[in-house]
Amino acid sequence: MQRAAALVRRGCCPRTPGPWGRSQSSAAAEASAVLKVRPERSRRERILTLESMNPQVKAVEYAVRGPIVLKAGEIELELQRGIKKPFTEVIRANIGDAQAMGQQPITFLRQVMALCTYPNLLDSPSFPEDAKKRARRILQACGGNSLGSYSASQGVNCIREDVAAYITRRDGGVPADPDNIYLTTGASDGISTILKILVSGGGKSRTGVMIPIPQYPLYSAVISELDAIQVNYYLDEDNCWALNVNELRRAVREAKDHCDPKVLCIINPGNPTGQVQSRKCIEDVIHFAWEEKLFLLADEVYQDNVYSPDCRFHSFKKVLYEMGPEYSSNVELASFHSTSKGYMGECGYRGGYMEVINLHPEIKGQLVKLLSVRLCPPVSGQAAMDIVVNPPVPGEESFEQFHREKESVLGNLAKKAKLTEDLFNQVPGIHCNPLQGAMYAFPRIFIPSKAVEAAQAHKMAPDMFYCMKLLEETGICVVPGSGFGQREGTYHFRMTILPPVEKLKTVLQKVKDFHIKFLEKYA
Amino acid sequence: MQRAAALVRRGCCPRTPGPWGRSQSSAAAEASAVLKVRPERSRRERILTLESMNPQVKAVEYAVRGPIVLKAGEIELELQRGIKKPFTEVIRANIGDAQAMGQQPITFLRQVMALCTYPNLLDSPSFPEDAKKRARRILQACGGNSLGSYSASQGVNCIREDVAAYITRRDGGVPADPDNIYLTTGASDGISTILKILVSGGGKSRTGVMIPIPQYPLYSAVISELDAIQVNYYLDEDNCWALNVNELRRAVREAKDHCDPKVLCIINPGNPTGQVQSRKCIEDVIHFAWEEKLFLLADEVYQDNVYSPDCRFHSFKKVLYEMGPEYSSNVELASFHSTSKGYMGECGYRGGYMEVINLHPEIKGQLVKLLSVRLCPPVSGQAAMDIVVNPPVPGEESFEQFHREKESVLGNLAKKAKLTEDLFNQVPGIHCNPLQGAMYAFPRIFIPSKAVEAAQAHKMAPDMFYCMKLLEETGICVVPGSGFGQREGTYHFRMTILPPVEKLKTVLQKVKDFHIKFLEKYA
Repeated sequence: MQRAAALVRRGCCPRTPGPWGRSQSSAAAEASAVLKVRPERSRRERILTLESMNPQVKAVEYAVRGPIVLKAGEIELELQRGIKKPFTEVIRANIGDAQAMGQQPITFLRQVMALCTYPNLLDSPSFPEDAKKRARRILQACGGNSLGSYSASQGVNCIREDVAAYITRRDGGVPADPDNIYLTTGASDGISTILKILVSGGGKSRTGVMIPIPQYPLYSAVISELDAIQVNYYLDEDNCWALNVNELRRAVREAKDHCDPKVLCIINPGNPTGQVQSRKCIEDVIHFAWEEKLFLLADEVYQDNVYSPDCRFHSFKKVLYEMGPEYSSNVELASFHSTSKGYMGECGYRGGYMEVINLHPEIKGQLVKLLSVRLCPPVSGQAAMDIVVNPPVPGEESFEQFHREKESVLGNLAKKAKLTEDLFNQVPGIHCNPLQGAMYAFPRIFIPSKAVEAAQAHKMAPDMFYCMKLLEETGICVVPGSGFGQREGTYHFRMTILPPVEKLKTVLQKVKDFHIKFLEKYA
Repeated sequence: MQRAAALVRRGCCPRTPGPWGRSQSSAAAEASAVLKVRPERSRRERILTLESMNPQVKAVEYAVRGPIVLKAGEIELELQRGIKKPFTEVIRANIGDAQAMGQQPITFLRQVMALCTYPNLLDSPSFPEDAKKRARRILQACGGNSLGSYSASQGVNCIREDVAAYITRRDGGVPADPDNIYLTTGASDGISTILKILVSGGGKSRTGVMIPIPQYPLYSAVISELDAIQVNYYLDEDNCWALNVNELRRAVREAKDHCDPKVLCIINPGNPTGQVQSRKCIEDVIHFAWEEKLFLLADEVYQDNVYSPDCRFHSFKKVLYEMGPEYSSNVELASFHSTSKGYMGECGYRGGYMEVINLHPEIKGQLVKLLSVRLCPPVSGQAAMDIVVNPPVPGEESFEQFHREKESVLGNLAKKAKLTEDLFNQVPGIHCNPLQGAMYAFPRIFIPSKAVEAAQAHKMAPDMFYCMKLLEETGICVVPGSGFGQREGTYHFRMTILPPVEKLKTVLQKVKDFHIKFLEKYA
């Protein structure tokens, strides 16, 4: 009855059926044969509890949508209910979700998607010919010429060809083979699929997966799910979060005592740290992976998001090939891209691809088999990926508008990256490395010892305490550094730079005011 | 060089860069510091091999897209290259992919999707108002009013509300709570997520998952991935593939010797078997689950696909509630639905939902956390799901057309179900139970002992041998029963009834002719 009452309270159907409900008599008659013993009415112990559940899933943490985001949701509801706060809206700077922050979709991409979705529009004069051409090409490659059919598990053929052509262009002619391209449900799906195949062994032979600290918490979450061993290597905060190969050596040496390090994950440009790796650094890493026999995972979803004039994106694939055949025919590398970031910010479509090279042919079969169990990635997301890798070119009808929209998004992001760095560095007790790329600031914050004690009293990590206070006092939702990992005794938070310029200025000013007050309060 | 040559052969970039490729001099200079020892050119042992890979992934099998489907792809390529065959096209009757077989999408669904994709169309007079109304409602619930934003991990709020309202209507008023609805990436995603949380323990305490035999091989694949214990219960072929609770009792009793049976999976209507469970049978199953403390998984993706006039779909949720509070407040049940089946057949969008009731509140938190690691299901698939549960109603502008399209698909399927059953049963050595629901026939085939020996000589299961021959001689691609499980010594195949009526007649005639020839050959 307790449950029924709760349902009524929630505004669900207030019917109060008899013990057997609507078809009471026939149901009861049918059931009488079964229910020799009429069970007592009582709430039993659940089968699935914190104690009985999969302990690896229990161990998973995912800060980007963790407790602070749940709190943000609660506050939003309170605001809707008219509860007074020192602010009027929650600003969700916790997640790289460009369109939620008001970024407009790229027109051409959505035109092609609409044409694919509802092919009657192919006769409409209000759509440009280059968009129609692409839509026809995608549809012709789909079963029944429809986005509603399953695709091959590896993805639609012509889209994989377009991805390969894009990579070849991007990498200045280094060849890419469509056979090595796998379309995915966002990059997260690709990363977890590859890790799933890689993890094996027990005890000291259990697979070790090297990840940067700070990291994007998908990695730690999947490692936990798979019961693999997380091997941390620390990025060098004092050196703009650069990756130092000596630190990789330290990490792998120490890891060998308790696991079998087999995988090295790299995020470039960095998330949450925003650093862009130099070509030299990438060579060092590849040589290290070759030397230590590590399978390389290169998370390159921010490849279009490079802002610092002295930085350039170099793909691991390109550098690998340029290092010569010993590397290019031996180092096993999976690299990942996505529709969600860059200038298009199409997170909701869950599009992505991975390029996997030097995979053993037998493993390729295993990978395709594993992918086939989930049938295929969303075909609409595959179509979105196609437009990202095959955008309008000069001479095409839509080129000018596409180019203008793209440059506007990227230009604004570059402006906001600089603005954020500059403003944070004016605040006493905040230090922010340059945002060379990606779409986040990850400033280091000084937390006074009194605040650390207050956090401990609330059983919170000090930076979680800080971020909760920030949220409660300003409505700004950022993610504590502890969710990404950081050197002990240091504190950070991750904040996206996605709000529009004027709004971002207000946000930064509010963080500044909050921080100064926080320092005073806990001085 | 071998690899480079292979790439050239495949038509990829034929550049022959120096050992350091394009940026040879600078790259070499940068690298010289690292590469003290110039490695030998040779192909090394791969890190990721059949021996080193995750053994649970290696053990996964997925027949629906298995070797026979790869073979079908090869034959298609040969046909394209002009190689002569006794047929002109491959008919892919291996997978329930309606639109690939020529079924047209439901107009209303695609109209709403196009409007959501490209909201400029909201001003177009060529779209009906009821479609615009739904599109506006969905967009208003999306971050930034865009399908390009991430949704909440559990799915867009208003869509979950629509799902709950649909379930309440479907179940004659039994309440559904939007809080218990989780939107998913197709039903497969929901099923594997719930199983992932449920599996725990080691040795004899390892979680046992009961599945029907024959089953849809997603179940065995996920059980293998999770290293859980598969507990088979056999459906009764002699009784139209009915589920008998005594068989459940036998299975659970025997399983307890070597594992901890904790989950019971039901597929209703059945895949591949097409049976529709009676209300009485569902009550028996629920009582059994209550008694044995089993978490129930009800795969109800074919709930709209019921053809036999004496059968009706009863949801587990509804029957559970009608059995009274002891059951409705205790039995933990997850039920699954999808955009891929029914009358809409929108497989490519990967839309789906699950309703999970009586979940421990702490586990609900764990589930949302786990879902949040993959961010969210594709928002376009969520929108498609919304239209499935919230279609036009009488009085709305699009109702007539929608109703006509829906009834046409379902009417044709019913016709084809009967046609298939009748025709198969005319063939000596084939017996086919009535196709009460879903979209497959799973006929039993007699394979003569000489053919069994021939199969053994080819190291193939006898039904795989049969299906390979069928494919090679007729171009018809079906899946051997061994991919779904069957009683030892019996042989079956699964064939979809999705081809258009006239084509299906040809297919059935060809299977008949093949079968008779096959019997003669191996007599």
